[in-house]
Amino acid sequence: MSDTTRAKGAYASAGVDIEAGNRAVELMRDAVRSTYGPEVLWGIGAFGGLWDAGCLQGMRHPVLVGSTDGVGTKTAVASALGSYETLGWDIVNHCVNDILVQGADPLFFLDYVAAPKVDPQVIAAVVKGVAGACREAGCAILGGETAEMPGVYAPGQMDVAGTIVGVVERDEIIDGTTISAGDVLIGLPSSGLHTNGYSLVRRIFPPEQYARYTELLGCTLGEALVAPHRSYLPHVRAIRAVVPIKGLAHITGGGYVDNIPRILPNGLGARVDRRAWDTPPLFSLIEREGRVDHDEMYRVYNMGMGMVVVVAPEGVDGALRAANVLLPPATPARVIGEVMPWQAGDRIVLG
Amino acid sequence: MSDTTRAKGAYASAGVDIEAGNRAVELMRDAVRSTYGPEVLWGIGAFGGLWDAGCLQGMRHPVLVGSTDGVGTKTAVASALGSYETLGWDIVNHCVNDILVQGADPLFFLDYVAAPKVDPQVIAAVVKGVAGACREAGCAILGGETAEMPGVYAPGQMDVAGTIVGVVERDEIIDGTTISAGDVLIGLPSSGLHTNGYSLVRRIFPPEQYARYTELLGCTLGEALVAPHRSYLPHVRAIRAVVPIKGLAHITGGGYVDNIPRILPNGLGARVDRRAWDTPPLFSLIEREGRVDHDEMYRVYNMGMGMVVVVAPEGVDGALRAANVLLPPATPARVIGEVMPWQAGDRIVLG
Repeated sequence: MSDTTRAKGAYASAGVDIEAGNRAVELMRDAVRSTYGPEVLWGIGAFGGLWDAGCLQGMRHPVLVGSTDGVGTKTAVASALGSYETLGWDIVNHCVNDILVQGADPLFFLDYVAAPKVDPQVIAAVVKGVAGACREAGCAILGGETAEMPGVYAPGQMDVAGTIVGVVERDEIIDGTTISAGDVLIGLPSSGLHTNGYSLVRRIFPPEQYARYTELLGCTLGEALVAPHRSYLPHVRAIRAVVPIKGLAHITGGGYVDNIPRILPNGLGARVDRRAWDTPPLFSLIEREGRVDHDEMYRVYNMGMGMVVVVAPEGVDGALRAANVLLPPATPARVIGEVMPWQAGDRIVLG
Repeated sequence: MSDTTRAKGAYASAGVDIEAGNRAVELMRDAVRSTYGPEVLWGIGAFGGLWDAGCLQGMRHPVLVGSTDGVGTKTAVASALGSYETLGWDIVNHCVNDILVQGADPLFFLDYVAAPKVDPQVIAAVVKGVAGACREAGCAILGGETAEMPGVYAPGQMDVAGTIVGVVERDEIIDGTTISAGDVLIGLPSSGLHTNGYSLVRRIFPPEQYARYTELLGCTLGEALVAPHRSYLPHVRAIRAVVPIKGLAHITGGGYVDNIPRILPNGLGARVDRRAWDTPPLFSLIEREGRVDHDEMYRVYNMGMGMVVVVAPEGVDGALRAANVLLPPATPARVIGEVMPWQAGDRIVLG
């Protein structure tokens, strides 16, 4: 059966184009393969991807860490701007950070991209970003799914999600249990909104405004909005090489107030000193133009710090030095607060 | 900050309800925990789920097999019928089958559920189905994501996807390489459309017709359409215990023509004898009322056989006996074709 016949079949007229899906696979093949290490036995084309776990047998006691996430409505902003490759970086780096907080190194990643209509170029661009971020993180794209779902997604919209699996030695899991009062919170700077708060952004700024150049941002609003989620893998590795890390909190939806308590032992809270760093102008712009309550901003957005590292006071200098060689001088890692005893009331105090 | 304050914040009015997400997590907690074995170190609530891989060290040479998939626009049919739990069974069983074809046993699963608006009851129902299917497959729900994406999804719609990771001994991977001409294709019966071809179904049958009772189906059209994807894990295990399996093809999108060649060595094709089994009435109904070309039906749908097992001729009787004790007598496993030399032309001949 020729390609043309297939594309013109009843299924195609129902809005599903199997050939477009196959073309997307062709376009992304090289990008996917660029992430393969010797562990990948099969990959694209197989029903399931095969990852040789023989290397885990050389570990003392391996623990696999898995996480699934999506980039949320950042897809809507990126779609309006035609910025698809950045979405690939977003989803991988988000997932890398989510397992990094428990000390895990990435092993492999699987992507999920869905749209009302498969545009092979768009899917290939997303996967190119996925592949770039996976190469940087040293993990393989083991599989993925491109779903064409007419009628389920709004026209012109799409969703990008992914799953990562990493590994950590059981006795090196970072779980916050050694955190005690007096420990210090170090903030690692974010590259922008990362992947949270885009529904609110879209209500404040209609797409017509994305092209607006803003002096304070040094770029257009759109460019600032689609800046990819930063991976903290290199920074955390650098810190860990010199200082024990007691806890890590990825500042995603729910901000400081929801995410820091996830790693604190019972009886402990934390104070975050918001004056310890300058709020990046993008957040101030959202707050001002959207007339968003200041505290609400800290619940929805990372406000400039995308990862919180908890170390003992004597580890602070070493941790800052290790992280800052990897960061732009204008936005260094900083001490942003400390761990305190807590009984009742707000567990995270925003000072 | 009280729940009420939070729900009324700017983010809530932008269409994202963090509290609804938290309520969904509460509702699904017990279901998720019901899937935990001793390997799950952390689960729900952590950034990433931890799965103790110490047990893999007792294997000769473990290979991890990963697969991501979605249930496609079956979500639209299920949403119209309020049948959310079945979607959970669908996504898990689809994924279980996708790694089963390479011989893998499921270890853990992560779900992804997205909607324009989070309805905690709906999400909990989906996850209840996920948990039921995971328990049956002996795999843990290691994580998941509920994404609220106003404007990206059409009102009332949702998406359900998932990722599975399983394991197989390297020397027990089923990869089709031992298949030779004369080997036999055994079909394992499907439970319905599984998770393919729903965009076409929706074009043929508007939701008003889902309540229509059809004598031939023995139920309403809607009930037949949302029947959960069957897991072939027990059948394949039973066959494998008595007969070497040379290859397995999960009949998903692309049907026999696209899926069987994925496991055939170069130089081999196959003949599928469509008269070897009775087409279940649901497929005939779709073909007739949708005026779908007969060959096209076999490209879009499983047409009654959801898994093809390739065995040597001398293994056929044992394989059929092993599978059929687990199947309804009315829809047994059957020989549906054979492997043939192939040089050019149609690689899969539908007889």
